[in-house]
Amino acid sequence: MKRAIVLGAGMVGSAIAMDLQAGGELSVTVADRSQEALARVAGRFGVQTLHADLGDPEAVKRAVRGHDLVMGALPSFLGLAAMRAIIEEGKLCCDISFMAEDPVELGLGKLAEERGVTVVYDCGIAPGMSNMMAAYGASRLDVCERIDICVGGLPVVRRWPFEYKAPFSPCDVLEEYTRPARLVEHGRVVVREALSEPELLDFAEVGTLESFNTDGLRSLVRTLAVPFMREKTLRYPGHIALMRALRETGLFSKEPISVGGQEVRPLDVTSALLFPKWAFDEGEADMTVMRVTVEGQRGERPARLDWDLVDRLDPATNTRSMSRTTGFTATAMARLLLAGRFARPGVHPPEVPALEPGIFDAMLRELDARGVRFAARARPAT
Amino acid sequence: MKRAIVLGAGMVGSAIAMDLQAGGELSVTVADRSQEALARVAGRFGVQTLHADLGDPEAVKRAVRGHDLVMGALPSFLGLAAMRAIIEEGKLCCDISFMAEDPVELGLGKLAEERGVTVVYDCGIAPGMSNMMAAYGASRLDVCERIDICVGGLPVVRRWPFEYKAPFSPCDVLEEYTRPARLVEHGRVVVREALSEPELLDFAEVGTLESFNTDGLRSLVRTLAVPFMREKTLRYPGHIALMRALRETGLFSKEPISVGGQEVRPLDVTSALLFPKWAFDEGEADMTVMRVTVEGQRGERPARLDWDLVDRLDPATNTRSMSRTTGFTATAMARLLLAGRFARPGVHPPEVPALEPGIFDAMLRELDARGVRFAARARPAT
Repeated sequence: MKRAIVLGAGMVGSAIAMDLQAGGELSVTVADRSQEALARVAGRFGVQTLHADLGDPEAVKRAVRGHDLVMGALPSFLGLAAMRAIIEEGKLCCDISFMAEDPVELGLGKLAEERGVTVVYDCGIAPGMSNMMAAYGASRLDVCERIDICVGGLPVVRRWPFEYKAPFSPCDVLEEYTRPARLVEHGRVVVREALSEPELLDFAEVGTLESFNTDGLRSLVRTLAVPFMREKTLRYPGHIALMRALRETGLFSKEPISVGGQEVRPLDVTSALLFPKWAFDEGEADMTVMRVTVEGQRGERPARLDWDLVDRLDPATNTRSMSRTTGFTATAMARLLLAGRFARPGVHPPEVPALEPGIFDAMLRELDARGVRFAARARPAT
Repeated sequence: MKRAIVLGAGMVGSAIAMDLQAGGELSVTVADRSQEALARVAGRFGVQTLHADLGDPEAVKRAVRGHDLVMGALPSFLGLAAMRAIIEEGKLCCDISFMAEDPVELGLGKLAEERGVTVVYDCGIAPGMSNMMAAYGASRLDVCERIDICVGGLPVVRRWPFEYKAPFSPCDVLEEYTRPARLVEHGRVVVREALSEPELLDFAEVGTLESFNTDGLRSLVRTLAVPFMREKTLRYPGHIALMRALRETGLFSKEPISVGGQEVRPLDVTSALLFPKWAFDEGEADMTVMRVTVEGQRGERPARLDWDLVDRLDPATNTRSMSRTTGFTATAMARLLLAGRFARPGVHPPEVPALEPGIFDAMLRELDARGVRFAARARPAT
C-alpha cells in the first residue's frame, strides 16, 4: 500500500485527507503543528497523524520521508519553503498552498528536473481546474482569442451589509481588494486596480453576481499565448461598492496613522472588526461559483467553450464547498500522478498536465464522482 | 451705540459678526482664543477683537462686561458653562452653541428669571427656524397632529463615495449616526435607532434626497403638545447605507479593541481617516436644504403648512450656506431682542418668542433680506 502525507490539517487539508482515506488504496497521514486540528481529522476520518512544525523546512523533510506522495496544504506563506524541502527529499507532490511566489521563476522547476521529481502546484479549483479549462479549451480551438475566468466562494444565505463570508484566509480576501490585477490584453500584460471593471453575470440557481478584476491569472500569463485573458472574482452585487468605499476611506491602508498618540495601521483595525463578521458559522453552507469561457475560432467560424460550476457545502460530511472543490481537484490530480499518468519532472502548473491525453477528462470524471459537476457547453456544438 | 460681543470666531461666529457689523447700528467685538481666527475676522469685517480663553467661565464674564448683547457661538461642549456665566453677568444673549445639555432642565431658566435676563438658545436654522415654524404653524391650526422637520447641510457637488462634506463639526455628524433619536408618536416619546427609517424626498432644484431619524427635536419634545413629531436629517441617497455599513462593522464604536498589542478606539481611527475627506475645500459651495411640515385641521378640514428652503454658499462674501442660515437666524433674533420685541426673562428655545405677535414674520423678513428665502405653502390656502 502506497503512503501519502497531507501537510496541513486546515479546512482544505482535512477534505484532502478525507478523500484520500475514503479511497482505501492509500495509507494516509496528516501532519500539522496543531494537536487539536490533528485530533479532529483523526477522529473524523481515521487517518494517522504526525505532530510537526511545518514552518521549519527540516521538519517538512523528516515528515515526508517514507511517503510516496505529498499533498501540500499549508498556509500560503509557508508554501514555497515547504515545496523546496519536498523536492529536495525527491517526493512526488501536489500543492494547494497558493503561495504568493512563482516557484518556477524562483528555480524550483530546475531543481525538480535535476532531482527527477514531479510537482503540480496551484492545483485547486481556481487556480487549478480553471487553468486546465483554459489550456484544454484553447487546445480545442484553431485560434484562441480570449479566456475569461470568474470564480467566487460565497455564503449561500446573504446577510446585510456584506453578503459575504470568507471561505479562506480573510487576509487573502482583503489582498484581492487591494493588490493590482494583472490581465492580458492584445497579448500584453496590463495592470488594473483591484475591484475594477465590475460586471453583472447570471448563474443558474444562484441569480445575478458581480465580478471584478483580481490578480488570479498567475502561471497562465506565461504558459498560454492568448491575446486576451482575465480572472475576476464573484460577489453578490453591492459588495464591491462597499469594499471600494472602505478602501477609498483608507481603511485597508497598511500605512500607520497617528491616533491618540499611537501609531496604528488602519488595515489592522478594519481586519479586527471585519474578520469575525466574515467567519462562517458552524455548519453554515457556502457555495463555489465558477465560469470559465474560452473563445476563438474553429476553422473560419467563431467558437466558444464554457464551463459553469455551482457547488454547495456537502451536508453528509459537513464539508464546505470551497474545501471540496479545492481539495478534490488536488486528490484527483494526486491519483493521476501516483498512477504515472503524468510523470514529467519539474514544477508544473495544472495547465501542463491538462494537455496530456486523457488527463482533463479524467479530472472531470473524478470530480463528478464526488458531486462537483460542471455544466459544459460548446458553441457551435463539437 | 449699543455694544455686541460675539463669543467664538468660528464659521458661524464669523457670519454673525459680519452681519452685525454690516448693520452699522452696533459696535461689534469678536472674542476667541485663536489670534489667527481673530485676525481673519477683523481683516474681513473690520470688527474689534478680544483674545480670551472662553473655556474659562471667568474669562467669559470679563469678556461680556460692558456689552448690551452677547452672541454665543462657541463649540457645543463649552456652551453650557458660557451661558451660565453670561446669565450671571446679567446679559441679553442669543446662543447657537447647540449644547448637548438642556439648559432649562439644568436650572439656567430659573437663574435667568431671577436675574431678569432674556436668553434665546438653539437659535440657528435647525434647531432654530425649524422650532419657530413648528410652533407658529401649530398655532395657525385648530388641531395640530403632526410636525415633520427635515434638514441637511450638503456639498453642492456630489463626489463618490460619501457625497458628503461636514458643514459643522464632523464629530457631531458621527454623533447623528450613532445617538438614538427621540421622536414623538401618539403623544409619547419613542426612541429609534440613528440612521433609521430612510425615506426619499424631492426638493426643487436639488432632486431626490434621503432622510433618516436624528435626535433633533430637542426642546420641542417638552414645549409642544403635538402627538406626532420627528426630526430627520437629509443626505444624498446612498450615504445612509454606507454609514450603516460602517457602523455595523464597528467602525463608529467607542469601545477600545486590541490591535497589535495596543488599545484603540475604532471611532478614533475612522475619524482620522474620514474627517479630512469630509472637509470642504476653500470656496467649495455648500447647501442648506430644509423642509418643515405642520399638519392638522382647521375647523373640520385637513390643513397643512410647509416651508421649504434651499440655500447655497454666497460667493460675494464666500460665506457658506450653513453659516449664513444659522448665523442670520441668530442675528435676526438678536436684533428683535435688542429692540425689546421679546423681553421675557428666562432661557427660551426659539418656539417661545415665535408665538409673540409679529416675531415670526419679522424673522422671515430679516432672513429674506439676506437672501435666505423659504417657499411657504398652505393647503388649503389661508
